[in-house]
Amino acid sequence: MKNWYLATFSDLLVDIETHLHDFFKGRPQVAPLFWQMADYHFGWTDRRETGNGAPLRNVSGKRIRPLLVLLVARALSGRHEHVLPAALAIEIIHNFTLIHDDVMDESTERRHRQTLWVKWGTAQAINAGDGLYSLGMLAMLDLRDRVAPEAAIEAMGVLLKACVATVEGQMLDVGFEQRTDVTPEEYLTMIAGKSGALIQASTQLGALLSTDDRRVIDAYADFGLNLGLAFQIWDDYLGIWGEAESMGKSATSDIEGRKKSYPVLLAFQQADEALRAQLLEIYARKKLTRANIRTVFQALETVNSAQQTRELIEVYFQRALSALDSVGLDNEAQRQLRELALFLVERAY
Amino acid sequence: MKNWYLATFSDLLVDIETHLHDFFKGRPQVAPLFWQMADYHFGWTDRRETGNGAPLRNVSGKRIRPLLVLLVARALSGRHEHVLPAALAIEIIHNFTLIHDDVMDESTERRHRQTLWVKWGTAQAINAGDGLYSLGMLAMLDLRDRVAPEAAIEAMGVLLKACVATVEGQMLDVGFEQRTDVTPEEYLTMIAGKSGALIQASTQLGALLSTDDRRVIDAYADFGLNLGLAFQIWDDYLGIWGEAESMGKSATSDIEGRKKSYPVLLAFQQADEALRAQLLEIYARKKLTRANIRTVFQALETVNSAQQTRELIEVYFQRALSALDSVGLDNEAQRQLRELALFLVERAY
Repeated sequence: MKNWYLATFSDLLVDIETHLHDFFKGRPQVAPLFWQMADYHFGWTDRRETGNGAPLRNVSGKRIRPLLVLLVARALSGRHEHVLPAALAIEIIHNFTLIHDDVMDESTERRHRQTLWVKWGTAQAINAGDGLYSLGMLAMLDLRDRVAPEAAIEAMGVLLKACVATVEGQMLDVGFEQRTDVTPEEYLTMIAGKSGALIQASTQLGALLSTDDRRVIDAYADFGLNLGLAFQIWDDYLGIWGEAESMGKSATSDIEGRKKSYPVLLAFQQADEALRAQLLEIYARKKLTRANIRTVFQALETVNSAQQTRELIEVYFQRALSALDSVGLDNEAQRQLRELALFLVERAY
Repeated sequence: MKNWYLATFSDLLVDIETHLHDFFKGRPQVAPLFWQMADYHFGWTDRRETGNGAPLRNVSGKRIRPLLVLLVARALSGRHEHVLPAALAIEIIHNFTLIHDDVMDESTERRHRQTLWVKWGTAQAINAGDGLYSLGMLAMLDLRDRVAPEAAIEAMGVLLKACVATVEGQMLDVGFEQRTDVTPEEYLTMIAGKSGALIQASTQLGALLSTDDRRVIDAYADFGLNLGLAFQIWDDYLGIWGEAESMGKSATSDIEGRKKSYPVLLAFQQADEALRAQLLEIYARKKLTRANIRTVFQALETVNSAQQTRELIEVYFQRALSALDSVGLDNEAQRQLRELALFLVERAY
């Protein structure tokens, strides 16, 4: 499955990685630590370990967002060079959010390695994230050499609004931790920001920078948002019913982590009084016993949470495909977008 | 002294505050907490406490950076409306850095009130800072309605590079805490980023958006950088020899806080072996005794640190004034820039 991804998109992934790497290498450095932390986070420090300089190893991210930017541009214009700055910007900004999220969640591992705050302390991890955010926007400015300045400015507006939405989503998520009355609907609002906004911006920007047709731009934006939602809820699903090892996270499942993800919120909402009281008691604990975990799984089963969750993923996924198809294009990049969507929620590959 | 500032710049300060407030009010809100935290941080929550809605109270910042943007624009073009987006952007971004700095330094008070992380926790304070950064850049985008798009993009580049420099400076500063061998020269590199970059960007952007004359733009940039350095070292001076109360910080002096500011680094560098060993021992402690504090003050006196520090402030201050004068303008805004510079380092007012 991962091989399909690498094989299908190797040219674009190499292009992304090369430009990303070059963008960082070419800059003046005042605080060497910042660049060292960025190198480490992006998985470039250990490049020699892989021997072949291959762009995609298990210490890098999958570069899904920049790939979406490039594929949408290709589908609409047959080329992708003009949107590379937007692709880099989104990837860099996505990584800034990961670094800060790891600080907030006190996550000790990402992509099989220590997180930045564990290695360099909380303060420097906050700084590294802040610096990456600036670099991400600087990458975006390179659009000036590739599209009309008005288009570059409009694209920056789209990206910045997505950043605000991402942060607001993250704020809701942090707030949820203290609450016992979060509804599944509120959860969907939260992930639309936290997870959906940047993926939506990816497809929207790929389109915005390649066509003037507002209907088409909106369709790709719609595709991205719904894909982002399906992808996030699928991630939630795997966090409970998937294999921990395959996700590159520590083996602690989302239940042990008392994460109030969609499947769990369904149980909170739909369980009867007695069961809900039990769940509330369990989710107020600092650490769960094996018996607690068993109770949560039973509650999930009682409300048929797995099936409901799969159904909701399917709803968003079908909306994403409809939006994509509504563009009415038939070319290789457009077909690859469909395949990529299928891949991301592991529907078929 | 503060009255002089308020009286002289009241029209511009009201303009800044009104536009700043309106910029926040007019936006869609997904996570109400974010907007609440911003309101609190900018000092708008307690507006009713002052009774008169006055823009500048002791809970707000002084809005020095946006004021510099506007005054430079006025000096060059006789108007300031076209640079308002840049002025707002810099003020918002400056405040994002303050919020994150407070988290990193674990500062509990700012402008006589609790800091955001104390009130809402570290995670939400990080988020609030991240969100303000995005909003700052969004404010900057409003330049598109006031200047040519190419100029707006160039201005964004200047601002973003200043943001990177600010973060790198902050990273050096955080790194200094762990080190005992920081030189006064390294300290100056640090504050050139942490404190100088955004003040430099303020004067540079005011000019860049008002003239095409590169010599003039560079002169104002030079003015801003040197003013920023003089201002920061003056702040360090006051942190040791000033009155704590007048600064709106908690009454802990920089000596008690074991801050390695310029005057202290001079002592580290210039003290003899025995005294340096004593200082190293003191600065390795978690908490200083009265005797420790007395020793530090004696060391400062031994190397004549106060006078050396005042002399360096004077060097940067005179460089700032020379750069300002080199523009060769004589009008009210230009005179006000000189007076503002004098005010900021309390040379005369």
